[in-house]
Amino acid sequence: MKQIILGAFEINQVNLTSQGLWAHPQQNTYRYKELNYWIELARTLERGYFDFLFLADSYGYPLLNGEVPAVTFEQAVEVPKNDPMPLIPALAAATEDLNFIVTTSTSWEHPYANARRFATLDHLTAGRVAWNVVTTSSAVVSKLFGTTQLPHDQRYAMAQDFLDLSYRLFEGSWEDRAVLIDKAKRIYADPQFVHTVAHDGPFFKSDGYFNSEPSPQRTPVLVQAGASSTGRAFAAANAEIAFVQGKDDKMLRDQIQDLRRLAVDAGRDASSIKAISGLSVVTAPTQAEAEEKLEEYLSWINPEAARAYYAMMTGVDLSSLDPASSFSNVTTEGSRTQVERYKDISVKEAVLDFLRRGMRELILVGKPKDVADQIVAILETTDLDGFNYTPFVSPGSYEELGQMVVPELQRIGIVRSERSRGTFRERLFGTGQSRLPASHPAAKYRRDGDVKDARKAV
Amino acid sequence: MKQIILGAFEINQVNLTSQGLWAHPQQNTYRYKELNYWIELARTLERGYFDFLFLADSYGYPLLNGEVPAVTFEQAVEVPKNDPMPLIPALAAATEDLNFIVTTSTSWEHPYANARRFATLDHLTAGRVAWNVVTTSSAVVSKLFGTTQLPHDQRYAMAQDFLDLSYRLFEGSWEDRAVLIDKAKRIYADPQFVHTVAHDGPFFKSDGYFNSEPSPQRTPVLVQAGASSTGRAFAAANAEIAFVQGKDDKMLRDQIQDLRRLAVDAGRDASSIKAISGLSVVTAPTQAEAEEKLEEYLSWINPEAARAYYAMMTGVDLSSLDPASSFSNVTTEGSRTQVERYKDISVKEAVLDFLRRGMRELILVGKPKDVADQIVAILETTDLDGFNYTPFVSPGSYEELGQMVVPELQRIGIVRSERSRGTFRERLFGTGQSRLPASHPAAKYRRDGDVKDARKAV
Repeated sequence: MKQIILGAFEINQVNLTSQGLWAHPQQNTYRYKELNYWIELARTLERGYFDFLFLADSYGYPLLNGEVPAVTFEQAVEVPKNDPMPLIPALAAATEDLNFIVTTSTSWEHPYANARRFATLDHLTAGRVAWNVVTTSSAVVSKLFGTTQLPHDQRYAMAQDFLDLSYRLFEGSWEDRAVLIDKAKRIYADPQFVHTVAHDGPFFKSDGYFNSEPSPQRTPVLVQAGASSTGRAFAAANAEIAFVQGKDDKMLRDQIQDLRRLAVDAGRDASSIKAISGLSVVTAPTQAEAEEKLEEYLSWINPEAARAYYAMMTGVDLSSLDPASSFSNVTTEGSRTQVERYKDISVKEAVLDFLRRGMRELILVGKPKDVADQIVAILETTDLDGFNYTPFVSPGSYEELGQMVVPELQRIGIVRSERSRGTFRERLFGTGQSRLPASHPAAKYRRDGDVKDARKAV
Repeated sequence: MKQIILGAFEINQVNLTSQGLWAHPQQNTYRYKELNYWIELARTLERGYFDFLFLADSYGYPLLNGEVPAVTFEQAVEVPKNDPMPLIPALAAATEDLNFIVTTSTSWEHPYANARRFATLDHLTAGRVAWNVVTTSSAVVSKLFGTTQLPHDQRYAMAQDFLDLSYRLFEGSWEDRAVLIDKAKRIYADPQFVHTVAHDGPFFKSDGYFNSEPSPQRTPVLVQAGASSTGRAFAAANAEIAFVQGKDDKMLRDQIQDLRRLAVDAGRDASSIKAISGLSVVTAPTQAEAEEKLEEYLSWINPEAARAYYAMMTGVDLSSLDPASSFSNVTTEGSRTQVERYKDISVKEAVLDFLRRGMRELILVGKPKDVADQIVAILETTDLDGFNYTPFVSPGSYEELGQMVVPELQRIGIVRSERSRGTFRERLFGTGQSRLPASHPAAKYRRDGDVKDARKAV
């Protein structure tokens, strides 16, 4: 059986997806402002053979009927929140093979500045970085940035334009052979192999040289979680890691098949996209103890905070719906999968489910061996490539997985038992694969000297 | 005599101000892409009792007659270059009391995203961060960002609008008393003390809550280097550290007097701005050896690269001027002080001077004791508060200063001999002064609860 990719889902804030759980006695997320909290966490992840730390991000916070409800601040629902990007070099310095996925939005950053930031991270971490590309639709954030919201499909057109310019900067400006660093001859770089990028797109323009010389991966590993049909096509065309969401194995399997088919349609290999799902685990020496532990965690959830959070993620105010009505009539501009998963049940049932689940995709509860067996069963059914693990308490849930479940998965052979040398892309696709493959759309922006050497590790 | 503030001038690139010196055998700046290079450098600075690491930045590179000359890449003149900001948390983790000044431009970033980045840095470094506010006039960078250049004075109006919105976000959104983090009562923050910021300025708009809760310093220490009259007024109104430039003690003293007078006119204390000048030192056991060492460094300068660099910084192409003509006729939209310093001499003499000096303000050469005596004499004449030290070779020039000159300055009592606890602003203005004083323009955006507690360390 293939080895999985194992990640940790985090946000540089107080709560993750279970609103209210911040106050749990074993919860240390209130230390999110301290660099040492993150350094300890990164080391815990590395000890547990996690492959990456995923840092979600947005500038948004809940809005219900045009107001920010008081519970937002009382329960720290998505605010306060800090920028996740500055953490990465510090955490890279504290670890050896942990990789980092960080989120930026094509709606709020300038592609040139964004590309220079990622190139810098890729240099400083020696190629251990990935970019989670998001397109934001948020009335809240539009107001914070003093702009107006774009319609859904326009946002993806903007995202593609953003990526096209980014690809040109990462892949098409400096050839590898340009950089000589020859002190004896007193030549740093050969000008004939450094090229201007002239991009005149529908949303972004740029004309000139990229500031950064080629980094180990050039384009960072590309991550995307689009769930609408436009979003899925965008992911299939561009992403190397795609987050898939499903309420059961069948929904997951269908999504993964769909994604790989769309990738092939876009001229890429089906295996050039890793499909990753969310996962939470509660484990204990007995099934009963594990279930009791889960219920104890869930008892901390604040229903009002959960409702505000649901509204922020989906645009749907659950308290405004008739509990007896069917969820199938609900429409949204926000996260569609979160709405679609409830389409066969009543609003009341949906609310009860969301209060337990938050945004968690999959919650496995039981003895370590049983959890491992369930994971194997899911992998066999769905063709998943890995999991983004969401803790209930931090660092406790990570320690639990690393100490109790990961050893079981290592015994079965689906989690690695050795340190992983090399870049993030090599971890995903094999030694020597630090650069995007020739079938990726970014490859067409390469200059001659690079195409030949595209697979050469730098 | 008062203690000085001692900084190190750096850029996340290969050359500093002497173009060509990257190839010197003792020069390690070619390692700028490695995190370990910076970590070692930060530790060297801390051992040498440096107070801060200054990270200059711009997206620009040289342009001569509309072309980027080949020497730009051959000698790495301001390109390649990486983003300096991601270095800071990693370097803060590797040191105990080194502070960090990092540059961002009010012309290219969005104030909301920029403020969240700085608040994050201030949290993660426990208040060891400062913001060097620059306004950029660059045809090159305008093209990279797909925008048009603003005229000089407009840029300062834009910068002031940027700062006003930043002040509101840093000082006026979250009161200190809002943040409770009370797990027992399950209340993270009290909503009544968190306020929306509604800014509708001539250049920037924002309406909503600031993502970040109050950091140790709230507004990072503010640094500015404006040299035009508009720039100087902007610095006097806003800055806590101002970089002054002068070719001799009199020019420095006049500038500092002018700056303090303008600050008082703006309602601030004369002592609320620290005036810092550039400094380079070449020292050796004898005067002759020190002079020989300087000449050896200067022998590495590439004249063509130096000319490209001068053109980038000032907008003036030295090779297009008649060597016999007077420099007094030269006008520029770029750095005026760099042009003004040559106003009494011929173009030929100016070129010769610039080839030696680069952008260095002050070069002291001699035995350690003699250099220390010269520093004391400058301080007595000029009312300077400190120096931003520019090395010839790295880390050699820093080690030299730290091991040979700093001990002399400690003996005289003008460099501290103890570790400095607390925030950067406390290092500058004394224990308990982590926040901006009431006389600073940002203070007017504070809400009631904060005004009372403004001087309370967090």
